[in-house]
Amino acid sequence: MASTPALQVHSARLWDSLMALAQIGATDKGGVRRLALTELDRQARDLVCGWFRDAGLKLRVDQIGNVFARREGSNPKLAAVATGSHIDTQPSGGKFDGNYGVLAGLEVVRCLNDAGLVTKRPIEVCIWTNEEGSRFTPVMMGSGVWAGAFSLEHAQQARDTAGITVLEALRQIAYEGSVPCGPSNEYPSYHAYFEAHIEQGPVLEDANLPIGEVIGALGQRWFDVRIHGMDAHAGPTPMHLRKDAMLAAAAIVQEVNSIALSHSPYGRGTVGSLRVEPNSRNVIPGFVQCSVDFRHPELEGLIDMEARLRRFAEQLAAQRRLDIDIEKVTEFAPCKFSSACLDAIGQSIKTLGLSSMPIVSGAGHDAVYVARQAPSAMIFIPCKDGISHNEIEDARPEHIEAGANVLLGAMIQMAQQ
Amino acid sequence: MASTPALQVHSARLWDSLMALAQIGATDKGGVRRLALTELDRQARDLVCGWFRDAGLKLRVDQIGNVFARREGSNPKLAAVATGSHIDTQPSGGKFDGNYGVLAGLEVVRCLNDAGLVTKRPIEVCIWTNEEGSRFTPVMMGSGVWAGAFSLEHAQQARDTAGITVLEALRQIAYEGSVPCGPSNEYPSYHAYFEAHIEQGPVLEDANLPIGEVIGALGQRWFDVRIHGMDAHAGPTPMHLRKDAMLAAAAIVQEVNSIALSHSPYGRGTVGSLRVEPNSRNVIPGFVQCSVDFRHPELEGLIDMEARLRRFAEQLAAQRRLDIDIEKVTEFAPCKFSSACLDAIGQSIKTLGLSSMPIVSGAGHDAVYVARQAPSAMIFIPCKDGISHNEIEDARPEHIEAGANVLLGAMIQMAQQ
Repeated sequence: MASTPALQVHSARLWDSLMALAQIGATDKGGVRRLALTELDRQARDLVCGWFRDAGLKLRVDQIGNVFARREGSNPKLAAVATGSHIDTQPSGGKFDGNYGVLAGLEVVRCLNDAGLVTKRPIEVCIWTNEEGSRFTPVMMGSGVWAGAFSLEHAQQARDTAGITVLEALRQIAYEGSVPCGPSNEYPSYHAYFEAHIEQGPVLEDANLPIGEVIGALGQRWFDVRIHGMDAHAGPTPMHLRKDAMLAAAAIVQEVNSIALSHSPYGRGTVGSLRVEPNSRNVIPGFVQCSVDFRHPELEGLIDMEARLRRFAEQLAAQRRLDIDIEKVTEFAPCKFSSACLDAIGQSIKTLGLSSMPIVSGAGHDAVYVARQAPSAMIFIPCKDGISHNEIEDARPEHIEAGANVLLGAMIQMAQQ
Repeated sequence: MASTPALQVHSARLWDSLMALAQIGATDKGGVRRLALTELDRQARDLVCGWFRDAGLKLRVDQIGNVFARREGSNPKLAAVATGSHIDTQPSGGKFDGNYGVLAGLEVVRCLNDAGLVTKRPIEVCIWTNEEGSRFTPVMMGSGVWAGAFSLEHAQQARDTAGITVLEALRQIAYEGSVPCGPSNEYPSYHAYFEAHIEQGPVLEDANLPIGEVIGALGQRWFDVRIHGMDAHAGPTPMHLRKDAMLAAAAIVQEVNSIALSHSPYGRGTVGSLRVEPNSRNVIPGFVQCSVDFRHPELEGLIDMEARLRRFAEQLAAQRRLDIDIEKVTEFAPCKFSSACLDAIGQSIKTLGLSSMPIVSGAGHDAVYVARQAPSAMIFIPCKDGISHNEIEDARPEHIEAGANVLLGAMIQMAQQ
């Protein structure tokens, strides 16, 4: 394998592209509101696709609107090395979530162009459709269809709150492509897929490190817990004769936390939503429904978390003379990223002399679906206060640059194989 | 003092009156919907006032619509012995709450008439206006004005959700009286006031006893607790970097319960309502507001409960690096009923050979305000499953009878003094 010179990205160019893209759907508070398949999404796609063309890339669009921008390799028959992310945002989103991954990919291409370097394998930059899922569910729609996680038809028929389907919206913005979704004979699955992304969590900032080598994504199991007690007047009902659903819910909340703590450092347990009936200050609650969100990098961990929750709820119900039922509403298997891709990332970090740590992604990303079809890994950079999905989302230019440099090095390495 | 023969109420007559009154505003599920100062309230007042007149009572109505039905004593100059309650109901109320107290008073008068017994002191039966507070706040409005807890003007200006004032509603149903509210030279405060009522709690049923001697009413202190954490994604945020307002709220809920348990048997602590922001299943809650309702028969008890809540919240906030503020939204002082009235009740129970227990009222009643102006006590009877403020509220005829007999005996005893 040829040793590759440590090419460096053009930091200001990447930053300027990010800021230009952030103008489309810019909010007063410095964020971006650019929901999937809206007119603003079209404008953003047109802008980025223009840049792709300017960089000499050949575009194709598939039936769910994913955009693939290809830089041919010296051996076009070989499977490409790809990178990308999404450019749709949350309703109150930031400038970096997704956009960074796409434009870091563009910057990689621009660097290769500047250096006149033709890689052995083709390079592709992907824009995945509707990663956020804010307008249409499911989330990570484009990469999910590409990877076969769910069908094209299922995705096309999803409707927004106005009743508009994904298919209609794709046609409205003229991004319904003709290319079949997923790897094909013509475009086989990738040799490697990388995705650079802001961490969307506080770990790197807390550790004061510019780069996270993302070894995988947490599996998730989500539950609805329904507690049926008996509502009664807060005054006349003595403590020992109560069937207080709120008190039982409090025990569940604390147990979810204990279970997650016992699976340190990667286990997560969250009760994010809770609904009380009748929710009156002088009535003992007869009913509480709360959500439970468990995350763990190992399937065994998720299984243990769920079993402990169910056991605890059973004991609690017996002890407190009330009924508790637990419904699993969603599950995602844990994802382990490719060691070959992680090796390339590690090599790139080493060449650049950067500090880093291994990290797991707590959230879903397009790379998690792409990983079902191609060796994949992600590169995280810190974001301010760990905040994302918020207009105040922010990231530092030196971290933006560092992450793109790691991506560039890793992609060249894999593309020369 | 002359020994009084143990007169007994006419159980079927009392029951029939209760059932007849329950027809006015009767609901499909066997309950009653008869909000204060509505046309249905007028019909109910007219019916009961007709019965009062048939029993030879002289009626007067005060400026807040309280009705007083008087049976003259052999010495009309003496302060009267009174009983009563209310005939307005909750929106989904029952047949017995309030109505029982008024009609048990009517039955006492009918018995005295049947026996041709003229008591030394006058006897009065009161219908207090708007005890429930469902249409107009504050609750216990008529007895509150009578006792000077708040002003007539304040009460008259209260508006329902349609903007109608109490004064307008009183005039619409022609129950704005001309008698000034409260004790006067002509009608001095009562020598004794009794109120028979369903327990609205599960204690008597649980103890399998027909009568509760109500020694007082719990004082109340209500709070809003606001917990300010930091919302963050449930996935990317490790457990040790969270400021989870829900987890803190769970600790508050459990502490409120512990504080109440440490004040057994009469202390009560309830978190009845809770609001979460953003209340999304995969977001760590950044904000929770919950209510706290503490009740205790002693002022010292309430003070201790509040102090412990505040101390706990302070420690919790420091420990979990979040902000907690506590606002007191309401307080009622504990009420101790008159030992003279309770002695009369105890004597009546003994004469009748009934079993009973001392009990505290956890809820507010007209008697709690009347007690500010006159020696007062209450008589509780069990209600089915402790349920009240509900269309399925129910009470057994033998308990209805027993409570009225206790009332009859106690009133005769005090009225002969």
